[in-house]
Amino acid sequence: MAGNTFGRLFTVTTFGESHGAALGAIIDGCPPGIELDESDLQGDLDRRRPGSSRHTTQRREADEVRILSGVFEGKTTGTPIGLLIENTDQRSKDYSKIKDVFRPAHADYTYHHKYGVRDYRGGGRSSARETAMRVAAGAVAKKVLSTYGVTIRGYMSQLGPIEIPFKRWEDVDDNPFFAPNNELVGELEAYMDELRRAQDSVGARITVVADNVPVGLGEPVFDRLDADLAHAMMGINAVKGVEIGDGFGVIDQKGSVHRDEMTPEGFLSNHAGGVLGGISSGQPIVVSMALKPTSSITIPGQTIDVEGEGHEMVTKGRHDPCVGIRATPIAEAMMALTLLDHLLRHRGQNADVQVGTPKLGMKE
Amino acid sequence: MAGNTFGRLFTVTTFGESHGAALGAIIDGCPPGIELDESDLQGDLDRRRPGSSRHTTQRREADEVRILSGVFEGKTTGTPIGLLIENTDQRSKDYSKIKDVFRPAHADYTYHHKYGVRDYRGGGRSSARETAMRVAAGAVAKKVLSTYGVTIRGYMSQLGPIEIPFKRWEDVDDNPFFAPNNELVGELEAYMDELRRAQDSVGARITVVADNVPVGLGEPVFDRLDADLAHAMMGINAVKGVEIGDGFGVIDQKGSVHRDEMTPEGFLSNHAGGVLGGISSGQPIVVSMALKPTSSITIPGQTIDVEGEGHEMVTKGRHDPCVGIRATPIAEAMMALTLLDHLLRHRGQNADVQVGTPKLGMKE
Amino acid sequence: MAGNTFGRLFTVTTFGESHGAALGAIIDGCPPGIELDESDLQGDLDRRRPGSSRHTTQRREADEVRILSGVFEGKTTGTPIGLLIENTDQRSKDYSKIKDVFRPAHADYTYHHKYGVRDYRGGGRSSARETAMRVAAGAVAKKVLSTYGVTIRGYMSQLGPIEIPFKRWEDVDDNPFFAPNNELVGELEAYMDELRRAQDSVGARITVVADNVPVGLGEPVFDRLDADLAHAMMGINAVKGVEIGDGFGVIDQKGSVHRDEMTPEGFLSNHAGGVLGGISSGQPIVVSMALKPTSSITIPGQTIDVEGEGHEMVTKGRHDPCVGIRATPIAEAMMALTLLDHLLRHRGQNADVQVGTPKLGMKE
Amino acid sequence: MAGNTFGRLFTVTTFGESHGAALGAIIDGCPPGIELDESDLQGDLDRRRPGSSRHTTQRREADEVRILSGVFEGKTTGTPIGLLIENTDQRSKDYSKIKDVFRPAHADYTYHHKYGVRDYRGGGRSSARETAMRVAAGAVAKKVLSTYGVTIRGYMSQLGPIEIPFKRWEDVDDNPFFAPNNELVGELEAYMDELRRAQDSVGARITVVADNVPVGLGEPVFDRLDADLAHAMMGINAVKGVEIGDGFGVIDQKGSVHRDEMTPEGFLSNHAGGVLGGISSGQPIVVSMALKPTSSITIPGQTIDVEGEGHEMVTKGRHDPCVGIRATPIAEAMMALTLLDHLLRHRGQNADVQVGTPKLGMKE
Repeated sequence: MAGNTFGRLFTVTTFGESHGAALGAIIDGCPPGIELDESDLQGDLDRRRPGSSRHTTQRREADEVRILSGVFEGKTTGTPIGLLIENTDQRSKDYSKIKDVFRPAHADYTYHHKYGVRDYRGGGRSSARETAMRVAAGAVAKKVLSTYGVTIRGYMSQLGPIEIPFKRWEDVDDNPFFAPNNELVGELEAYMDELRRAQDSVGARITVVADNVPVGLGEPVFDRLDADLAHAMMGINAVKGVEIGDGFGVIDQKGSVHRDEMTPEGFLSNHAGGVLGGISSGQPIVVSMALKPTSSITIPGQTIDVEGEGHEMVTKGRHDPCVGIRATPIAEAMMALTLLDHLLRHRGQNADVQVGTPKLGMKE
Repeated sequence: MAGNTFGRLFTVTTFGESHGAALGAIIDGCPPGIELDESDLQGDLDRRRPGSSRHTTQRREADEVRILSGVFEGKTTGTPIGLLIENTDQRSKDYSKIKDVFRPAHADYTYHHKYGVRDYRGGGRSSARETAMRVAAGAVAKKVLSTYGVTIRGYMSQLGPIEIPFKRWEDVDDNPFFAPNNELVGELEAYMDELRRAQDSVGARITVVADNVPVGLGEPVFDRLDADLAHAMMGINAVKGVEIGDGFGVIDQKGSVHRDEMTPEGFLSNHAGGVLGGISSGQPIVVSMALKPTSSITIPGQTIDVEGEGHEMVTKGRHDPCVGIRATPIAEAMMALTLLDHLLRHRGQNADVQVGTPKLGMKE
Repeated sequence: MAGNTFGRLFTVTTFGESHGAALGAIIDGCPPGIELDESDLQGDLDRRRPGSSRHTTQRREADEVRILSGVFEGKTTGTPIGLLIENTDQRSKDYSKIKDVFRPAHADYTYHHKYGVRDYRGGGRSSARETAMRVAAGAVAKKVLSTYGVTIRGYMSQLGPIEIPFKRWEDVDDNPFFAPNNELVGELEAYMDELRRAQDSVGARITVVADNVPVGLGEPVFDRLDADLAHAMMGINAVKGVEIGDGFGVIDQKGSVHRDEMTPEGFLSNHAGGVLGGISSGQPIVVSMALKPTSSITIPGQTIDVEGEGHEMVTKGRHDPCVGIRATPIAEAMMALTLLDHLLRHRGQNADVQVGTPKLGMKE
Repeated sequence: MAGNTFGRLFTVTTFGESHGAALGAIIDGCPPGIELDESDLQGDLDRRRPGSSRHTTQRREADEVRILSGVFEGKTTGTPIGLLIENTDQRSKDYSKIKDVFRPAHADYTYHHKYGVRDYRGGGRSSARETAMRVAAGAVAKKVLSTYGVTIRGYMSQLGPIEIPFKRWEDVDDNPFFAPNNELVGELEAYMDELRRAQDSVGARITVVADNVPVGLGEPVFDRLDADLAHAMMGINAVKGVEIGDGFGVIDQKGSVHRDEMTPEGFLSNHAGGVLGGISSGQPIVVSMALKPTSSITIPGQTIDVEGEGHEMVTKGRHDPCVGIRATPIAEAMMALTLLDHLLRHRGQNADVQVGTPKLGMKE
């Protein structure tokens, strides 16, 4: 209820501060009998991990995850899965200056007023470091979803002013931007290098696609699949906007264009992004999101301290000039957690309705 | 859990189909001692009600709400508030043709596959008629919030291709579009008249603003205020995108521009839309959303039936050519429900932290 | 969260005061495709209804329930089911004397301090009248459970000092006490008549048994089936104790006696009452509860008013001299709601594990 | 939802198997600003720890708890508190014989059928070892409650046939039984020694009392304080019955005796056990529970294996002959978790109603 649990049937509860002893999570409600070990989680953790290119923060964390429970002889048992990552590269001394001063556009000011006390080291709980546990838990969800044939893949679709049209999935893990088009990588690197020289930061757009999602996931009227996806994505640090399918493009669309017509051979388009009336339609689910530019920059800015006095501030430390660059695995994880939770919810109420994708137009 | 309850501490559970006997809701967790009667709800219900201009569906419903419990001698008692609206204008005969055929871009296809059975009359539970109860419940939330000085107001910020820059709040309830600028009403009416002649439909953008929101609302890390607002708004029928503050505009923003600097006199800008780190900052909360064009149009389109056979279809009946036109009161209601729920959650955990807006820069 | 919702996947949310306009409930998460109409609910409502014998309150309510949504062409649709009972026999004038005085052993004192305001007419929300909606919702749960072969039956096992050993189910609905032994009815009636003459009241014990419950229901470690049954039963007005299986009899039992040994032909005993490690074992689930004597009696007693002044009080009105007499259908309803909720929860997580009772000792 | 989370606003989620790597918990929703360090938790953990006398299992665990997050500079920050206890004395070899055979009266049979797979080492998740995390989390709740003056204390009120009348709190932590009467310790020890020689086990009764609980805790109608206490206590391993106040004694009580009359000086009795209408009354809250005899005994018994074949079985290993002996700290912990959760819930809805115990009869 205090917000650190995600999901209803497949729940993930996390803890941990940027510079605390460890990050951890408990996954509750994982179906039993799924093969699982640490290597299933480590892959996505490595994709999210900082320091893998010059375009991200140089903080170095091994992000080595341990499974402490819920898996026996290589399979999930249905009991809660405890996960732990010890923090190793903490350098607390870097953060003493921000103890009493609120960094602009950070959570410092709001945490201070909400709780009356805050762990100021590295942003504490508000640090993006927290997302490591989302990625670890999302990897478990992906593994379970894979038994239904569901795949979830994301990519960067825009970096600052540079739009990145989708070319091929193969490229995504082949460059430091998760760009689905290796030909643009040179342009992206040049942009980032210039940005770093200007000591500024920029936003990005990430798109995530789920294929082979069963029809029927989503609970109208409030907990629609699209509503819960919006909750999941807007809950990622720095996200300021979420779109399903054509998103804001629908404002100037005509109904005769938007409606995805159906034929015995299948849908003729996917403007809806795979969700109709809040329920998955069996088409690919397409979600895009906008991430704001990193607030930690070294260009001086005005702020105040806990006493209300004015200050000019420079945020030092090791930061990502574009937080969007490492966001793709996080967005995939949140998509996976949302879909699996709804799959279990659907199954609970509607056991006799088959979980699977009916072939459109096939007589059953 | 089946999705018909909204909120955690101030919960709203609704029932009712478009052509069933009645719509109803139960509000649980309303603070006691709040003055409340039906007239507090009826105002917003009337704003949402169809048939008030030629630009909306001509279905006519009195939408007269009764409070059945939870209020005694004019005040809330802290016990659940039962609400009921009897359906009066049902005309079930209009809908017999769509019994076995899926209207494109409607929930027919997904409801059929999710539940194996559906109430096809007027869209059943998936009808926008369901939102009447959200508006009624939201009016209760607005009343409670008003005791904290919080105000919530929305407007149409774009109709199809026509952007509607904000001019003044006074105009919003003075025209059938909730447009904050009466000068544009002629252009909007002309556009709608042409659209109706073309028998097509179009999308819209709605913007909602909450003023005087206390600092500290929102529960990191998953149930952030912005995440829950996104859930609330994306859960409204036809919404395909949600933005907080600058929304998708942040992608091409620099960090030096986006960060809202602070001075002892206050914030210098509000790119964040009133939320920092998932927690309200005391600035106005600004949320925008995109609504898709109505799918019920009389231009023929391809579809299939429950047997998988192809059909050409025309959706008759009484429909809104732009569902966005009546969406403003609904979006306000969802904003109110979200904010009040978080206010109560905040109060539960942090009773000693004052609920109220600190004057930025004031020594406390 | 304010306590008027029961269950997680099959949820029941209720509203209504004793002397308000109506009682109502919303059932969310009911599986689709179940045949259902008002007559399925009315039977249990009639069993609970007061005034059916001289041993219960003479308040007369038709308790006629309407289904307002969620059922279409005689079957549940998976959408929320709205239920409504209008109050007809209210007689508010009877209650004006207790406006400012707290009746001993009632909720008057605690409601006053919790909410600062209360609907004093007939106890308002704290009246046993509220249980009518539990019985209506429980009847829906019973209907769904019957598709799994699960049956739920209760009886009075003790009335004041008179123990009522179980003889046969047929007798239970054949006398006004739900006693499973018609031979004892004369003794019970004589006891009640004397009690009424003494203007006093007395407690009772109710026992409920569920047969043919699938193995596997219950979620360790906190939401065990027995824990949730205890929650359900202790949540009934006037219940002060709950037992599973041998209950308090286990204190002086030896382990060699208590353990229910297993053979290829089945369990040799059922001291555990059908729950092992918080999970149903396939044996009959047996729950007993103790109900306190009615607090509304006409023997004068000391109390105070809202100003703290002392008073001598007599509680007039129409009351049950033994609230346990009408409690059997309520206890059955709460058992049904608990079991169905756990069945759906189990199905969500463990879809591949069959819901059904394995024959003990059968090789699968 | 899979049952490993307790509470709504102050939530505890746990993981860990008897012979896994570690036990852990996440506390979410702890109020900020509370002084807390490991020593606050270790005291109760040591009281629960096995091996402290010859009357409990000889398994030796240090049960040393680490706080991994949520506390900064000695105070809680309002963010989740991660707790971890590494398992040290595991001896997995002892358990290989029970891999395919179901121990009678254990969770082996039900876990097998629920999940299709189970960690058989030491009972896995169903081991009483799991309760260490409840005790750790309960100690945090006690600390928070102490800021309201609430105290929670428990004792053994019956061991097998030996009733232990309450004498004084000082004795409770002065003997290995948590008996509130040192004079009876000799008799209890003699009984246990004889029981051990007979290789049998026995049940017990535990009573917990909370003093100085504010009026107003508890959410009618389903989540009453007594209902949630019953859920909490019945969810403890081996508990088969729960009573509030006079409990099963009310069956044969007259209303004129049971009702706790009120005078300007206070209540004249406490038959209700501190709860009226599901809401705390300000009187001491008194809960008793019955724990069954340990099922792990060395007297041979009949059982079956996963193939359904019959076996005669002896449960070896290191077991408590009376699980009730170590249950007192666990019951206290569950009482603390329940009360604190309700205090926060009450505060959320009813902020203006003072949290504190009104002096009965005082004009306010």
